[in-house]
Amino acid sequence: MDTYIALDIGGTYIRAAVYPHLGIQPICQKKITTHGKGSAIERTCDLIADMWPDAGKVKAIGAGAPGAVDSKNGIVYSAPNIPGWKNVPFRQVLTDRFQVPVVIGNDANMATLGEWKLGAGQGHHNLIYLTISTGVGGGVIIEDHLLLGEHGLATEMGHFTVLPGGPLCGCGQRGHLEALSSGTAIARYIQEQIQAGVPSLLSENPSISSRDAAEAAAKGDELAVAAFARAGTFLGQALADYLHVFNPSLVIFGGGVTLSGDLLFTPLHASLERHIISPQYLVDLEFKTAALGDDAGLLGTLTLARMTS
Amino acid sequence: MDTYIALDIGGTYIRAAVYPHLGIQPICQKKITTHGKGSAIERTCDLIADMWPDAGKVKAIGAGAPGAVDSKNGIVYSAPNIPGWKNVPFRQVLTDRFQVPVVIGNDANMATLGEWKLGAGQGHHNLIYLTISTGVGGGVIIEDHLLLGEHGLATEMGHFTVLPGGPLCGCGQRGHLEALSSGTAIARYIQEQIQAGVPSLLSENPSISSRDAAEAAAKGDELAVAAFARAGTFLGQALADYLHVFNPSLVIFGGGVTLSGDLLFTPLHASLERHIISPQYLVDLEFKTAALGDDAGLLGTLTLARMTS
Repeated sequence: MDTYIALDIGGTYIRAAVYPHLGIQPICQKKITTHGKGSAIERTCDLIADMWPDAGKVKAIGAGAPGAVDSKNGIVYSAPNIPGWKNVPFRQVLTDRFQVPVVIGNDANMATLGEWKLGAGQGHHNLIYLTISTGVGGGVIIEDHLLLGEHGLATEMGHFTVLPGGPLCGCGQRGHLEALSSGTAIARYIQEQIQAGVPSLLSENPSISSRDAAEAAAKGDELAVAAFARAGTFLGQALADYLHVFNPSLVIFGGGVTLSGDLLFTPLHASLERHIISPQYLVDLEFKTAALGDDAGLLGTLTLARMTS
Repeated sequence: MDTYIALDIGGTYIRAAVYPHLGIQPICQKKITTHGKGSAIERTCDLIADMWPDAGKVKAIGAGAPGAVDSKNGIVYSAPNIPGWKNVPFRQVLTDRFQVPVVIGNDANMATLGEWKLGAGQGHHNLIYLTISTGVGGGVIIEDHLLLGEHGLATEMGHFTVLPGGPLCGCGQRGHLEALSSGTAIARYIQEQIQAGVPSLLSENPSISSRDAAEAAAKGDELAVAAFARAGTFLGQALADYLHVFNPSLVIFGGGVTLSGDLLFTPLHASLERHIISPQYLVDLEFKTAALGDDAGLLGTLTLARMTS
C-alpha cells in the first residue's frame, strides 16, 4: 500500500505519523522529544527511517516546522526553540536522504490546511484560522488556496500592531496582537497588576499560566476576568481589521487560551461588532473552534503532501 | 472588430472607454459628470448606449464603482458620494439592458488589476497596491489572483486600526490608517495644530489641501513637514503589518499624496524598517509608484472583462 509520512516538528516534541494513500487514520504514529542525542534534523531523519513502511511506496514526506519557513524553496529560515535551525535547506536534506518528494511548511499554516480540508473549515473557501496559546499565530485560506506570500512568510497573524508603543512582544516589537492577547500576555498582565497592588486570588502564585487565570476568573477573580477581557477586546479589534482585509466566511479559533470560552469570546465579539465598518462583513460569517486538536498539524501536512504528489 | 467597454464610476465623474479586442489604446473615450439629469445608473446606461460601436461585437462590459462592491454577485452594496446606490444589482441592470456579459468591481481593486497586468506590477505574482489620496484604499494580488473575499469586500486597506482611540475616520471608526495618513488626515492635523497655536505658513489658509501642505513643507514649514512625517510613520507601521500578513514582492503606491515624495516616503521607510519583524520580509521587496495614473481603473476593468469573457 502506498503511504505518506507526516511530521509535526515543535520546540518540545517531534511527532510523526504514517498515513495510507486515502483516509486519515494513521497506520502508525510516534512522538519523540526534539532535544536529545543528535541534532533535531538527525533526530527527525532517524524517526522517519524508524517509521519507514516495510512494504509499499512512500509517495511523499510532509513536514511542518515552527517559525519562518519558505515552503516554496523548502528552507527553514529560523525556528524558535530549535537551536541551530537557521536557513536550513530542510526539503533538500530530506529529499537527499529518502529519495521521495518532500513538502514543508510553517506549523500554523499546516494546522490551517488541516482544519480547512479535514476539520472545522470543511466546505468553506475563504477562512481565517487564529490560534491563541503561548503566542498568537494562524493562517488564511483564500479561494481554496493557502496564503503563503512570495517567500512563504505570510500570515504572521500575531505580529500586527494593535497598540503602538504597547507591551513588548516576543519578536522584539511593541504592541503586537501577540503581546496583548496571547496566554503569555494575559498572565503577564495579571502579574503586573498584582505587583501594582491590585488584589487577586493569584497573588501568591509565582508563575501564573493562562489556565490558572481562567480558573481564578471562574471563581470570580476580578483581575483575571479583566485580563481576559483586555485580551478579547484587542482580539476583536484585530479581527475586525482582518475581516476588512480578507472578508472570509469563517473564523476558526484554536489554541489553549480559547478553551476559556466566554471569558475571552464575550469581550471579543463585543469589540468586533464595535470595530467593524459595515455589518456586511458579519453576514453569513461563521465562528468555529478548531476540530482536530493536536492532530491539525499532522493532518494539514498530510493534506499538503497529498495535494502536491 | 470585437470590443470591450470599460467604465470607471466615481463620485464626481463617470469615465468610459471602448477598447479593441487586443491592446490598450482606446478606440474612443468619454467623461460625464456623475450627478446631473437622471440617476447615476441611467446616466451610466445612456453613456454606454452613446458609445456603443456601430460595427462588431461588444464582448463584455466592465465597470468599476467606489465603495462596497460584491463582484461575485454583481451587487453594489453602497457607493459613497453616489446617492441612492444601496444594494444595487448593477450587473443585472446592465446585462438586461445590453445583453452582453458584464463584470463589476470595486474601483481600488480595478486599479490594482490594471497596475498589476499593465502597469507598475507587471511580472509580479504577489503585490500590494496602496492609494493615498482623499482616503486610503488599495488592493492585493496573491499568486496572480485579485483578493476579493467571500463577498468581494476584502482589502479595505485604509480601514485598519493603527491607533486605538485615534482620530475619527470617514467610516465612523477611530484611529484607522485612513484617519491618520490620508490627504484629508494630513490637512486636518495641520488645521488642528494651527488652532492649537503652532505657527505655520498655512495659518491664513482656510481650507488646506494636502497639496498646499506639500508646498508649505517645500518652503520649510515645520508643521507641514511634521504632518507628512506623522502620516508616513503610521503608513510605515501599517505597511509592516501588511508585509507580515501578505509577504509580497512589490508594493505600489498611488494617489495624489504620494506625489509629495520624500516628505512622505522618508519617514514611511524609516518606520517600516523599525516595525518589520525580520529583514527577510524586505529581501527582494520592490517599491514602485503607480504607472497608469487616472487610467488605472479603466485598464483594470478592461483586464477583468478580458479575463472573464
